[in-house]
Amino acid sequence: MDDMEFQNYFPVWNKLDTAHQGQILGTLITRTVKKGTVIHNGSNDCTGLLLVKSGQLRAYILSDEGREITIYRLFDRDMCLFSASCMMRSIQFDITIEAEKDTDLWIIPVEVYQSIMAESAPVANYTNELMATRFSDVMWLIEQIMWKSLDKRVAAFLLEESAIEDSDTLKITHEAVANHLGSHREVITRMLKYFQNEGMVKLSRGTIELTDKTKLEELSET
Amino acid sequence: MDDMEFQNYFPVWNKLDTAHQGQILGTLITRTVKKGTVIHNGSNDCTGLLLVKSGQLRAYILSDEGREITIYRLFDRDMCLFSASCMMRSIQFDITIEAEKDTDLWIIPVEVYQSIMAESAPVANYTNELMATRFSDVMWLIEQIMWKSLDKRVAAFLLEESAIEDSDTLKITHEAVANHLGSHREVITRMLKYFQNEGMVKLSRGTIELTDKTKLEELSET
Repeated sequence: MDDMEFQNYFPVWNKLDTAHQGQILGTLITRTVKKGTVIHNGSNDCTGLLLVKSGQLRAYILSDEGREITIYRLFDRDMCLFSASCMMRSIQFDITIEAEKDTDLWIIPVEVYQSIMAESAPVANYTNELMATRFSDVMWLIEQIMWKSLDKRVAAFLLEESAIEDSDTLKITHEAVANHLGSHREVITRMLKYFQNEGMVKLSRGTIELTDKTKLEELSET
Repeated sequence: MDDMEFQNYFPVWNKLDTAHQGQILGTLITRTVKKGTVIHNGSNDCTGLLLVKSGQLRAYILSDEGREITIYRLFDRDMCLFSASCMMRSIQFDITIEAEKDTDLWIIPVEVYQSIMAESAPVANYTNELMATRFSDVMWLIEQIMWKSLDKRVAAFLLEESAIEDSDTLKITHEAVANHLGSHREVITRMLKYFQNEGMVKLSRGTIELTDKTKLEELSET
C-alpha cells in the first residue's frame, strides 16, 4: 500500500488543503490484520479512524455475560468512526471491531483527524454523513429486533452472508450466527434444523448450504 | 419569544458569522404546540431542525402494526436533527416526533441550516456532536432491549418518569408505558400488578404511584 492509493480511497481528499493532506500522509499507519484479529476493543481503546482497503470487519457490542450482537459491518472503502470514539465526547458506548476476513487497512490517528475536522467543513460534513449511515444501520437493527421474529432474521442473515460470500455454501458455525443476531447457539441450532426440515438449508459440520433461496427470501420478507 | 432568546439557546451562535446569523434570524419559525401534537411524521415530512425552548418532545418509531418504541426524548434547550432528515441523504429511517407536554420551540428551515453547515466547520461539528448524542441514546436502547429483561426496563422507566415529573405519582396509562418500551399493554398491566403485589407501586385509574423507589432502583440496577 502506498500513499497514492490512500488518496484514492479517502472520499474528501480533494477538498483538503495541502497542509491537511500533508498532515494525514505524514501520520498515516498502514496495517494488515489476519481474520479473527480484534482491532478495537471498547471505549478506553482509542485506536483511530479505520479506512478499509480490502477485507471485512465486524462491529459488535458485548453484554456483561459475553453475549454479542453485530451492529454493522465494514467492507472495501468503508470508514469506521467509532474506533475513534474518544474524538467526540458525546459518543458514549463501547464497540468491538474484529476482522472477519484478512484485511488491509489504514489508520488515521485521532488527534490528526480531530484537528482537521475542527477546521474543515467538508471533513466535518463527511463525518456527519458517515455517522448518519451507521445511525441508519442501527435504526434498522432496532426495527429488526423489535418487530421481526427470529426465523425471519435468521433467513435474512443467511441470504446476506450468501451475497457477501457469493456462495450458497456458508462456512459458519451456529455459534457465529447466534453472535451476529444476539441470540443463543441452542436457539439457532433449533431454528436451522427447522429450516432443514422445510428444505431451505442443508446442514453439515461447519457449513450451512442454502438449498432453497426463494423460500428463504419469502420467509425473510414477510 | 423573541430573537434575543434564540441566540441564548442556540449553542454555536457566537461561532457564526454575521451573514449566517442574519440568515437564521430572518427565516426562523417560532411555534407553540399542545401536548399530544405530532410535530414530525416520517421521512417524507422535512419539518426542519427543532430547538426546544421549554416543554418535552418524544421521538419514536412505529412498526407496520402500529406498535411504538421511544428512541429518545427532548427537553429544554435540546435540538432535534432527525426532523430534518432530508438534510442528509445517509439518514434512512422514519421517526415520529410528538409533544409530551405543551412545548415552545423554534424551527430552523432545512435549506438554511444545510447551507450554513456546508460552509461552517463549527456548525458541522456541533451537528456531529448532536448526532453522536442521539447515537449513544440508541446504543443504550439496544443494550436494554437485548440484554435487560422487561421488569428491569419497566422499573427504570418509572423511575425516569418520576425524575422528569419530579413526582412519585405518575399520570400515565399502561398503554403509554407499553408504547415507550415497545411492548404490549397487557404485558405491562401484568408486570405493574406484579410490582403492586411486591409493594413497589400502587395502581389506580390513570395513575401509577411509586411506593418503594429503593426497591424499584434495586430491581432496575440488577
